Amino acid sequence: MKELAEPIRRLIEELKRLPGIGTKTATRLAFHLLRQPPEDVERLAAALRDARESLRTCAACHNLTDQEFCEFCRSESRNRRQVCVVESPQDIINLERTGRYQGLYHVLGGVIAPLSGVTPEQLNIKTLLARLEPNTVEEVIIATNPTAEGDATALYLAKLLKPLGVRVTRLAVGLPLGGELEYTDAGTLQHALDARREL
Amino acid sequence: MKELAEPIRRLIEELKRLPGIGTKTATRLAFHLLRQPPEDVERLAAALRDARESLRTCAACHNLTDQEFCEFCRSESRNRRQVCVVESPQDIINLERTGRYQGLYHVLGGVIAPLSGVTPEQLNIKTLLARLEPNTVEEVIIATNPTAEGDATALYLAKLLKPLGVRVTRLAVGLPLGGELEYTDAGTLQHALDARREL
Repeated sequence: MKELAEPIRRLIEELKRLPGIGTKTATRLAFHLLRQPPEDVERLAAALRDARESLRTCAACHNLTDQEFCEFCRSESRNRRQVCVVESPQDIINLERTGRYQGLYHVLGGVIAPLSGVTPEQLNIKTLLARLEPNTVEEVIIATNPTAEGDATALYLAKLLKPLGVRVTRLAVGLPLGGELEYTDAGTLQHALDARREL
Repeated sequence: MKELAEPIRRLIEELKRLPGIGTKTATRLAFHLLRQPPEDVERLAAALRDARESLRTCAACHNLTDQEFCEFCRSESRNRRQVCVVESPQDIINLERTGRYQGLYHVLGGVIAPLSGVTPEQLNIKTLLARLEPNTVEEVIIATNPTAEGDATALYLAKLLKPLGVRVTRLAVGLPLGGELEYTDAGTLQHALDARREL
């Protein structure tokens, strides 16, 4: 990229560090940004900086927040008897979109993955156990991804939590809405069969 | 997106203004950025700001540069008898990648497009004519895109330039390398036939 002025080259290099952004997209984005009014670019730069500086993790559930507790933990209308355990804060967005869940959350910060060197100690499990102590939580819904590691983490948590007298559940695995049997993998289909329901 | 803390929501909104970035990608990028060390995010914010602030257009050819003249216009090794006319600075990157061109450039800043209200006066045509005055330029290669508007602009320029005694050429249109006749549109195929060469 020697044909580019240094500030563009540097901007492209920085954009390329983003996930899913290759040289072509980074170049297109950079040139697009250079055509925008300086205020717009300034607003993006400020939003980046502010978000990174002002956000921290909720003292109770580890969700991202700009206050001490996240809005779910602060809310008076959420059901405090249910806690849904997710891998990351993004997962909360999708669960909220269903409109079906009114309880609290707990962000693990990943899954147990010995091959990548992630042990249970590195996840937010101790704080989860602490939240169950006052005996106000009746159900823990484990919403880790239905992957080998997500499943192993779910089993590990179930083993820890059940002796505490709490109900432990896991999201159902089955055919996606609008999916086709022809294109569904055998593992998913197997789960869909095993978990078939009366009509 | 009421389920998100305000600084993330604002960052996502700003990222969504970028071309080709929808809500999902913007959300993924935002959460990725929040997991990065603050220095990395700061570097991206600074690169954005610097690029927008320090870049201007070359006083001779309108390419983007952080100096008065771009590196092509400053270079002593480029062939000053050829000027390649492109629509935008991005086009220069791709032409440079061919390694086949050693002349100078001239960035039009768009194409004549009456329907979008772009008239010849809004393009960098006057400065192109001024560059030809010292009679040092022998050939102007018109490298506007092979679209209706790019073609019309090329014809318009040819009409202006030829009377000045300069050679005016245009990039060839034909089958792309590795392309297949079966999937080539009739217009391209017609050009490829008309411009067929002896073997």
